[in-house]
Amino acid sequence: MDPDTTDIDSIAPQLFREDAEALDIADPLAPLRDQFELPESGLVYLDGNSLGVCPKATAARVADVVQGEWGQGLIRSWNNAGWIDLPQRVGDKIARLVGAGPGELVAADSTSVNLFKVLAAALAIQKALAPARRVIVSETHNFPTDLYIAQALAREHGCELQLVDDAAALASALGADTAVLMLTHVNYRNGAMHDMAALTAAAHAAGALTVWDLAHSAGAVPVDLHGADADFAVGCGYKYLNGGPGAPAFVWVHPRHADGFEQPLAGWMGHAAPFEFTPGYRPAPGIARYLCGTPAVLAMAALECGVDTVLSAEPLGGMAALREKSLRLTRLFAMQVRATCMPLAPNLRIVSPDDDARRGSQVCLADPELAYPVVQALIARGVIGDFRAPDILRFGFTPLYTRFTDVWDAAEHLRQVLESGQWREPRFSQRQVVT
Amino acid sequence: MDPDTTDIDSIAPQLFREDAEALDIADPLAPLRDQFELPESGLVYLDGNSLGVCPKATAARVADVVQGEWGQGLIRSWNNAGWIDLPQRVGDKIARLVGAGPGELVAADSTSVNLFKVLAAALAIQKALAPARRVIVSETHNFPTDLYIAQALAREHGCELQLVDDAAALASALGADTAVLMLTHVNYRNGAMHDMAALTAAAHAAGALTVWDLAHSAGAVPVDLHGADADFAVGCGYKYLNGGPGAPAFVWVHPRHADGFEQPLAGWMGHAAPFEFTPGYRPAPGIARYLCGTPAVLAMAALECGVDTVLSAEPLGGMAALREKSLRLTRLFAMQVRATCMPLAPNLRIVSPDDDARRGSQVCLADPELAYPVVQALIARGVIGDFRAPDILRFGFTPLYTRFTDVWDAAEHLRQVLESGQWREPRFSQRQVVT
Repeated sequence: MDPDTTDIDSIAPQLFREDAEALDIADPLAPLRDQFELPESGLVYLDGNSLGVCPKATAARVADVVQGEWGQGLIRSWNNAGWIDLPQRVGDKIARLVGAGPGELVAADSTSVNLFKVLAAALAIQKALAPARRVIVSETHNFPTDLYIAQALAREHGCELQLVDDAAALASALGADTAVLMLTHVNYRNGAMHDMAALTAAAHAAGALTVWDLAHSAGAVPVDLHGADADFAVGCGYKYLNGGPGAPAFVWVHPRHADGFEQPLAGWMGHAAPFEFTPGYRPAPGIARYLCGTPAVLAMAALECGVDTVLSAEPLGGMAALREKSLRLTRLFAMQVRATCMPLAPNLRIVSPDDDARRGSQVCLADPELAYPVVQALIARGVIGDFRAPDILRFGFTPLYTRFTDVWDAAEHLRQVLESGQWREPRFSQRQVVT
Repeated sequence: MDPDTTDIDSIAPQLFREDAEALDIADPLAPLRDQFELPESGLVYLDGNSLGVCPKATAARVADVVQGEWGQGLIRSWNNAGWIDLPQRVGDKIARLVGAGPGELVAADSTSVNLFKVLAAALAIQKALAPARRVIVSETHNFPTDLYIAQALAREHGCELQLVDDAAALASALGADTAVLMLTHVNYRNGAMHDMAALTAAAHAAGALTVWDLAHSAGAVPVDLHGADADFAVGCGYKYLNGGPGAPAFVWVHPRHADGFEQPLAGWMGHAAPFEFTPGYRPAPGIARYLCGTPAVLAMAALECGVDTVLSAEPLGGMAALREKSLRLTRLFAMQVRATCMPLAPNLRIVSPDDDARRGSQVCLADPELAYPVVQALIARGVIGDFRAPDILRFGFTPLYTRFTDVWDAAEHLRQVLESGQWREPRFSQRQVVT
């Protein structure tokens, strides 16, 4: 155990605000927070796992794209401002965060659309090599859009989606009929993180391919796609990559597969020579064939600013240093909830793993009665987490901009909401469209 | 023939700049140009069919979304700023331009991705009702991305893509094996416009469904999807809708089909209750099931500003008035090219239809030797059209911001480039990445 983690242990069983302040002062990553536009000073934002905060650089960059590159440069900016290269340029930056090589990853479309591409590719590879493999294995509590896309593709391809309730049972669910193991690396509901290398090895040993959704991993935890020998991956631009609401997503394909298959969303940007305007599709070499339509330039520029905020940690230790801080934040929050909040709410429990090696960058609590109104009461106090149906209180800790005092403040507000019964106010039970 | 058109006829056989100036002064739509950020005053921008110009309102709106709604509002803006409704809100505005009803059209994804959705839906409907229909009929010179997507889907579904060289032969190509007639309403290469109502009627009489790509129609020519009894349509946000580079596209499905099929890109935003996070896909009623991933909020805000510029013509006569001006612009340009340019270049010809009823909002010339270098020489002079391989010089006339003097200036520059032989300068033969 390293000295820093021991420091945290010495704080147990309860954090005091002075301790949190001291941790912030000593935090070598604290200056990274200055890269961001943060709202009113009292706000404690623990929802970067749903929507990352806005980098200071983004407004000026987007304004330049709108007014300069588009407004003045017009169509000429496809060449002169490098718009046509954005999917690759931003993709190469994201690649550095997930253990992928240059030229292997592109930013494009949404996570759902990209998942469709890679899952279709994986199924097609298996259909050609091992047609008896017709089962996609995933988790019951995977993010629903992943399951919906898999269901649609399974129907199209005459395959079956097999859902496993218990993550520990995944490896034993792999068999001679498994085509693809499709998992989200860090679960959106409880923050549980899979061992990507071990599960990929198990999948390969069983003859299956792997598709990893890095939505809650990229920019949050170290990912080593090549180290894990993964086959396909997708991920989200608007969570820990701070790309803005609905930012383009990304897609990675191991080079051993990238040239081998024409994915079905065969739009012109994946063509070997899109500006020859030939009627027959000829896929570009490598990952470029996973592009489809025209790049979303404005959104891509904002995404690049977001990715740059994560890359700015490289001189300070990069993802390893961010991970270390993230683990300290989440351990302290869980400890503090145990010490000060759970005694006030008999059914409240922590559903994120205690084991550092199995926890992403979030701490989730559960309580069927309290979850929704408590989250709303916290939001009214300026502590932004979110509710996930049916019973989850979700708190994301983004080490780029979350302070140790935020941990203390959030837990203290939660304690006060529970102790005062404030969550019982009727206004906190009114459902919003998006929760 | 209406009096305005007669006025234009009285100008023949040649336009003088004084005539053009007088037409601008008399033009009731001239004030609409003030809505746009236009670059250096000498620029003649005839490429709005590739990338529309930037509305003045866009920079402020996008800045507010970045700094206010995202920067300050953060995740709360999904509810408080109505982000979650953007696909429908912007879609309802676009619907007014294409003869669709409210709640029937959504803005989302790219044109290529949307085409995949509706073509898959059309094929699935036919597979259920008339499984012997396995042919998609389209044109050889349809925009390539449409053909690529159709090829990929045909392969998946065991169908065949039948390409017709001559648009006049399309109706006779429809038969007992035709599943879908898939066409772009206005051709990107020559500006030829199909009779949507007649071809849809022919398709229906033959038992086929229709998929219309409105990329060069929406905001450029009047479209009446219900009047034509069309089945499916998609379109582009960054051309005549001025939504910005890579803006979200749109998708429309006739209400008689919208509830009947689950399109394969079954992402969570098309779910009946996305925030219930249930593992099984249950499609939303109506067009919402054609959504897939999280809306691209920044890009959608810019698109809304662009669509608003077209809607701003409603008090001045709307699409009918824009169409009348567009026809005058294109007729004058073709006349002027005939009178002053074609005598200088024996192989230069006009490939856009003379017939107003068959011409979109562009005039295309062709010349195998001259096309590329002449377009580059014109760009160097500040007359922005574009080259389309192998031999097309393409000039788009957007009635919202194109002036009659732009017509004269563009033709005069073309005349000078031809007369002087300037196009022979070696720098005009160097190929750009995007042309």
